[in-house]
Amino acid sequence: MRVKLIESRKVYDGEVSMRLERFSINGRTVDKEIVEHRPSVGIIAVEDDRIFLVSQYRRAADRALLEIPAGKIEEGETPVAAAKREMDEEIGYSGTLKPFLKWYLAPGYDTELMHLFVAKNLHRIPSRREMDDDEDIAVKKVRLDAAVKKCFSGEITDAKTIAAILAYRLKPI
Amino acid sequence: MRVKLIESRKVYDGEVSMRLERFSINGRTVDKEIVEHRPSVGIIAVEDDRIFLVSQYRRAADRALLEIPAGKIEEGETPVAAAKREMDEEIGYSGTLKPFLKWYLAPGYDTELMHLFVAKNLHRIPSRREMDDDEDIAVKKVRLDAAVKKCFSGEITDAKTIAAILAYRLKPI
Repeated sequence: MRVKLIESRKVYDGEVSMRLERFSINGRTVDKEIVEHRPSVGIIAVEDDRIFLVSQYRRAADRALLEIPAGKIEEGETPVAAAKREMDEEIGYSGTLKPFLKWYLAPGYDTELMHLFVAKNLHRIPSRREMDDDEDIAVKKVRLDAAVKKCFSGEITDAKTIAAILAYRLKPI
Repeated sequence: MRVKLIESRKVYDGEVSMRLERFSINGRTVDKEIVEHRPSVGIIAVEDDRIFLVSQYRRAADRALLEIPAGKIEEGETPVAAAKREMDEEIGYSGTLKPFLKWYLAPGYDTELMHLFVAKNLHRIPSRREMDDDEDIAVKKVRLDAAVKKCFSGEITDAKTIAAILAYRLKPI
């Protein structure tokens, strides 16, 4: 597979950016819109036989979705530091983090690569940090078996959350 | 939860678009970039104990990824028609399609909603349609157990593909 970048042009620069690229693949020229998003983290936070899920309004879906805690890796932050911060901000817990899986969310056009962690030995953090300003989050503790059912019932409609719950169900670490 | 749109402005219009929105949630004002992407389909195409995966170069990841067949629902197309077209274009098979799950890929900022189907009774299509012009696809038939292993080994790094394979593994329909 021979790939050569011909031209790259930023058409929007923000928290999420967009660039237009022209590249050749095996001699064929392709133009493609690429959404640029920072790498991110997702966390399966486990306490006894329950995991933490958060319900929050998602503008892009125009509804509240039930998801694992997740968020961007900030400039200069390591994935594990980002996972600790997001756990603090979204569920108010600290814990022992183990890397589990890595995946792209929409690799056809979006650069976001998510690092998935499993968090155990959870401890409530007495003084919560400020929540991200677009987060009005309801935190729920759900039995793993019930969470798996929600992946098939339509209660959970987020691909990363379904992938995370089913992966942990099949291969708990 | 009280949500009110204050302002919406298209900042890029293309195959993938971007809009900036200002909305209020429970009285708090939030500005958000929203990536607009058409709804899409993904297919778990099953033949005996094997499923079809496609390997193709993904510019946003700058590498070839192993994924389930998937693609946009075109204007005026039904999800099932899009799934049949993508099966034809990406693997060259027709089959009986059953709706399985629906999920957002990146609901924090992206409107794409994917309809996942399971395809059975597969038949090779003698005269292949033209492939989408950004697709140089290698088609692979993989045992379901081997596909599950690839979800954990790092060979598959696409969230929708991991969610689809593990969902079908846990609850074959």
